Amino acid sequence: MNLILLDAREVRSDGACVLHDRRALHIASVLKSKPGDELRLGLINGPLGAGVVVAVQPDKVNLQCRFEADPPAPPAADLLLALPRPKVMKRLWAQLAALGVGKIALTNAARVERCFFDTHVLEPSFYRPQLLEGLQQARDTRLPEISLHRRFRPLVEDELDTLFQAGLRLVAHPEAKGTIAAAMAEKPAARVLLAVGPEGGWIPFEMDLLRAHGFLPVGLGPRPLRTDTACIALLSLIHAGKRID
Amino acid sequence: MNLILLDAREVRSDGACVLHDRRALHIASVLKSKPGDELRLGLINGPLGAGVVVAVQPDKVNLQCRFEADPPAPPAADLLLALPRPKVMKRLWAQLAALGVGKIALTNAARVERCFFDTHVLEPSFYRPQLLEGLQQARDTRLPEISLHRRFRPLVEDELDTLFQAGLRLVAHPEAKGTIAAAMAEKPAARVLLAVGPEGGWIPFEMDLLRAHGFLPVGLGPRPLRTDTACIALLSLIHAGKRID
Repeated sequence: MNLILLDAREVRSDGACVLHDRRALHIASVLKSKPGDELRLGLINGPLGAGVVVAVQPDKVNLQCRFEADPPAPPAADLLLALPRPKVMKRLWAQLAALGVGKIALTNAARVERCFFDTHVLEPSFYRPQLLEGLQQARDTRLPEISLHRRFRPLVEDELDTLFQAGLRLVAHPEAKGTIAAAMAEKPAARVLLAVGPEGGWIPFEMDLLRAHGFLPVGLGPRPLRTDTACIALLSLIHAGKRID
Repeated sequence: MNLILLDAREVRSDGACVLHDRRALHIASVLKSKPGDELRLGLINGPLGAGVVVAVQPDKVNLQCRFEADPPAPPAADLLLALPRPKVMKRLWAQLAALGVGKIALTNAARVERCFFDTHVLEPSFYRPQLLEGLQQARDTRLPEISLHRRFRPLVEDELDTLFQAGLRLVAHPEAKGTIAAAMAEKPAARVLLAVGPEGGWIPFEMDLLRAHGFLPVGLGPRPLRTDTACIALLSLIHAGKRID
């Protein structure tokens, strides 16, 4: 944990906060904090801040908190992801939150197996702690907004424009010659929406629909990557492209 | 599996090959191949090729193979990695092989716990199948060469120049302002050696030693990432930089 995230309801109006859960254990046992030490804090979906340790026991930590005026800027990338196998999705939550993604729309596609939707990995009670773990790793406070879509065509045709802000739209495609860097240099935009297909790829109808809705195909080179590796690689390239702007 | 890897000893001089293990199961049950179908093949550390299916049973597949003259070009990146927690290392093997790494030197460092070296995750019997899985995903044949180093200083001072070919040396450092793209544009090189530190970072002595041995600090932006996420992100940026050359 490079940051300890608090829910706004945990902090009293005078800035006092008492922790009892694994965050308290982390402060006591891993950080080995002592009264007077200052810790990096954040409010979930709110500003970053700092907390002075008032008292430490293994199962109870008292903090005196203060927060900055504004929350950090939201990440400049969003993700439209064909739902991967539960095992892969499970690994992805924390890593996506750590890399920085504004919204994640998980969608069905021809090569997504229907049973992938019937998993506890897609329940907020499972993924919210994973997302928080990623944010605490990356020192961010903003939870990605998650949505599930069982029908690909209505999503792309009717919902995409209201779900995502305007910006550059990219679709990862193994055969595409264009690179992310070239697409971002050619069409500078405040936000990038990245579409990543299922393990077997989008079918031609899906690629055509994405292209017709403004998605530019971009490649990652000749090596086909697993969905989780590809998502991390592509988002890193988008964020690196943003830093050059 | 986007490629089926064979050991040279499995292929007879006339190109015939019989598979009995999970590769046979994959060909029969996942690819649902029939006699006459052609499959992508590769020889471990050798050339790519193709195999015509001669006969298929769930536990036995006969192939007739032919191979290209030369093996694919080796990946242009090497990795010097402070040994991460076994859980993280376990996840990394296949992903590193898929992204493409020539050599991986795993090293001790001040913030690496000694017990991390005493794990089955570092035994070839564990990691070789993981590396092969990554290669089969990425359609490559070249196994990364793995070495373990329990002493950081002698490694950097005495062994690095013989272990790794000359090239650009980069060290990931959270506070570095320079980017991978800028470093690669400024000092074009055939190969890049990337150093990635332990979870808590390199200590100042280690950073100084790396700098003194030619490593340029590069940053990944303001978000600290977990070792596995950082390795994937950094290697993707290096490979993307190479494709622009």
